[in-house]
Amino acid sequence: MSKNLTKREEDYSKWYNELVVKADLAENSGVRGCMVIKPYGYAIWEKMQAELDRMFKETGHSNAYFPLFVPKSMFEAEEKNAEGFAKECAVVTHYRLKNDESRPGKLMVDPNARLEEELIVRPTSEAIIWSTYKNWVQSYRDLPLLINQWANVVRWEMRTRLFLRTAEFLWQEGHTAHATKAEAIEESEKMMQVYAEFAENFMAIPVIKGLKTESERFAGAVETYCIEALMQDGKALQAGTSHFLGQNFAEAFDVKFTNQEGKQELVWGTSWGVSTRLMGALVMTHSDDNGLVLPPNLAPIQVVIVPIFRTDEELDAISAVANELLTQFKKLRISVKFDNRTTQKPGFKFAEWELKGVPVRIAIGPKDLENRTFEVARRDTLTKEVIAKEGAVQHISDLLEQIQKDLYNRALEFRNTHITEVNSFEEFKDVLDNKTGFVSAHWDGTPETEEKIKELTKATIRCIPLDRKEEEGICVFSGGKSTGRVLFAKAY
Amino acid sequence: MSKNLTKREEDYSKWYNELVVKADLAENSGVRGCMVIKPYGYAIWEKMQAELDRMFKETGHSNAYFPLFVPKSMFEAEEKNAEGFAKECAVVTHYRLKNDESRPGKLMVDPNARLEEELIVRPTSEAIIWSTYKNWVQSYRDLPLLINQWANVVRWEMRTRLFLRTAEFLWQEGHTAHATKAEAIEESEKMMQVYAEFAENFMAIPVIKGLKTESERFAGAVETYCIEALMQDGKALQAGTSHFLGQNFAEAFDVKFTNQEGKQELVWGTSWGVSTRLMGALVMTHSDDNGLVLPPNLAPIQVVIVPIFRTDEELDAISAVANELLTQFKKLRISVKFDNRTTQKPGFKFAEWELKGVPVRIAIGPKDLENRTFEVARRDTLTKEVIAKEGAVQHISDLLEQIQKDLYNRALEFRNTHITEVNSFEEFKDVLDNKTGFVSAHWDGTPETEEKIKELTKATIRCIPLDRKEEEGICVFSGGKSTGRVLFAKAY
Repeated sequence: MSKNLTKREEDYSKWYNELVVKADLAENSGVRGCMVIKPYGYAIWEKMQAELDRMFKETGHSNAYFPLFVPKSMFEAEEKNAEGFAKECAVVTHYRLKNDESRPGKLMVDPNARLEEELIVRPTSEAIIWSTYKNWVQSYRDLPLLINQWANVVRWEMRTRLFLRTAEFLWQEGHTAHATKAEAIEESEKMMQVYAEFAENFMAIPVIKGLKTESERFAGAVETYCIEALMQDGKALQAGTSHFLGQNFAEAFDVKFTNQEGKQELVWGTSWGVSTRLMGALVMTHSDDNGLVLPPNLAPIQVVIVPIFRTDEELDAISAVANELLTQFKKLRISVKFDNRTTQKPGFKFAEWELKGVPVRIAIGPKDLENRTFEVARRDTLTKEVIAKEGAVQHISDLLEQIQKDLYNRALEFRNTHITEVNSFEEFKDVLDNKTGFVSAHWDGTPETEEKIKELTKATIRCIPLDRKEEEGICVFSGGKSTGRVLFAKAY
Repeated sequence: MSKNLTKREEDYSKWYNELVVKADLAENSGVRGCMVIKPYGYAIWEKMQAELDRMFKETGHSNAYFPLFVPKSMFEAEEKNAEGFAKECAVVTHYRLKNDESRPGKLMVDPNARLEEELIVRPTSEAIIWSTYKNWVQSYRDLPLLINQWANVVRWEMRTRLFLRTAEFLWQEGHTAHATKAEAIEESEKMMQVYAEFAENFMAIPVIKGLKTESERFAGAVETYCIEALMQDGKALQAGTSHFLGQNFAEAFDVKFTNQEGKQELVWGTSWGVSTRLMGALVMTHSDDNGLVLPPNLAPIQVVIVPIFRTDEELDAISAVANELLTQFKKLRISVKFDNRTTQKPGFKFAEWELKGVPVRIAIGPKDLENRTFEVARRDTLTKEVIAKEGAVQHISDLLEQIQKDLYNRALEFRNTHITEVNSFEEFKDVLDNKTGFVSAHWDGTPETEEKIKELTKATIRCIPLDRKEEEGICVFSGGKSTGRVLFAKAY
């Protein structure tokens, strides 16, 4: 297996694009901006989905499904939301093709099958869902509505990159309705917390929890909570958002309830989502020049066993031992693959599983059978050890936990050493250009300064950290007053 | 809880429509022909998905994801398939909206954002998937490709009904590629078998396995295998199909491989799918005038516990016992709900859970606490018994298995008594009009006769059963020769 993977130092962006394709995660399709998620990539996404879905259900949410299409008049009802997404909407205008008489065997849009009202392919589902909630909510007894949807959405992006920015992507979108403002805010914060726990415990990615500034907020939200991660190239990536929608959508879609005092009130809303973009974050946080590095909690294959043999007899003897291991691993719910292909050499297999990021590799040769040992290699550190057969499965089970922790700690260390406090715009630019990462700086709170800084440096305010110190300061750009630092970074 | 459900005898179709809405399975949306699948309905679909997904993986398949959109030129490549779906395609022609200057706050399609090539919203994914397979297959070593996709698809149906026929629906579609014809046929048959097992063991619906006639075949298939079920009103419902595609798509998309002898060959294909239509089959097979009847293997709530109390003290005492039960049920992975709402009376709760088809209801009152007993009611038979507290959980676990079997057997009995052999067209029409169900009749094998019979009776050939007897006979309509009986029915 020849990898020929570009090195991160040479060209990080190229390394990423190559890796996603070579590790069989995804590829570009014949449809502009849309990707194909390949089985190996999809298996990781399925593990993400399973954990997130469990967490959503544990916090009281149910899944449901709403239409892919949104009629234009419904789409435009919440004006800010509509304005925010109008420029990147796929629009269905016709419902039939017919034979193209001038080109035998070809089809054309049937001009007689024009829709009376155009349908927008959902870029997000607030409009369709709130138009439904109107009929579901009459009394305070009907609240809260705690609903999640797993779906595909479409945003017509002009410049796309696998997982990070695609015209169609997969995501989950939670949409909840509440009787009080406090309860809706609590829900938005809770789901941000769920995302943070998922990122940290499963993806092994440390995240900063914060609020978006007005200009970075979700279109139609009163407040956007976010989790921000840092990639190995020092660029930030928004890994999940949770929006407090106030009564904006309730007002636009006339969703009212009768409260305990018998009075009509508008409902309070939230929405929150993470997408296949997380796949990009996963790749860019842990992987190296040899390929993917997957945290054990999300690896479709956690352990691979590679036999080293020259004869059929040797393979048989090794297989017997490997099958014992398989049985034991399965009892511990550790997913393991015995790569007994006879068409490939061990070196090829080693490189292939390295490229695909399998956390632990066990090699078994005739010598190991004699000595009752295995050679165990860690993908993350590329280190090897020889361990005794007795207790090997428990050892490896512990090792998987250790790898999960180590990956998190390594990413945390990197992230923490890439948050730099600056007190002047010179320093600000210097950090962005050289050290990269998050720049912690005072900002005067105006969208004008934010915009100006973005123009000059390409850095945006990633978030106002929830745990920031309140401290008086002076905006690094305008010299205006500030009450605390915010985090800037160049971002995906 | 007032149910006011129309009776099946009065108007079966109305009964179905009402039940789907009242039992909180689904409802029509504000988008023509598209439904909202509500949380309770979606929970059943999730159980179906989980079992099917497990079965697909056990038979060697992996999930992946392909684009929602198909460029028109790709769509039309396999001509028969394109022709079959062209009349019901949603077509995306633009990628942007803009402000409508003449109507402040409103949006319009931006005429400057017309796509160079129209995109079809997938009605099925053969085209996009085979255009991808072209790059995935070079050698016989790359085969077979065994891939499944869970997705939404759109077919612009003019007359829609919740679950049974909707413009957008959810489904899974398997798409496999093989080196030999025999292997592809084996795959199509295997997946039909998987569907049959799922229908029988989980949905408790007996099905007839068969082949479609040419005119009922999937557009682009060489052979379509199907499973056909019978609803309580005597109409048939196609519950799943598995297609042997021959080399049709390989030819259209130029998917070739180098065989073991070093020669280039076209790949052989299959595709197979089941959809949210199964929800309709589930409802129509088992439910009654009181509401849903769900087979325990697919019920989101298998057991509901309703406390009968007048005072808080009574509720507390009952809750203590109920909580013991909850713990024991959870150990057996039986999903149970303790309905301890104080806002509703027991009678209301009984009716509600009856409507929602929960297989077993346990009622616990103060008398039961004294006597160490429970009242247990079966949803399917509407019978009650009083059982001892000791051993109650095991008793109910066994009862759930019994209910699953009984539902299947009842449906089987109904289905078997509704297959009628006829030998004349008079008999044929008489059975369809009065007894309903499947009519087993000789047919001359021509599409003309099939079409004529359909015109005269609305009955179509549901399938040529795989296990039919080879016997010489005379077509009931034309008098032409036949080599075996086929099954006709009116169908959903």
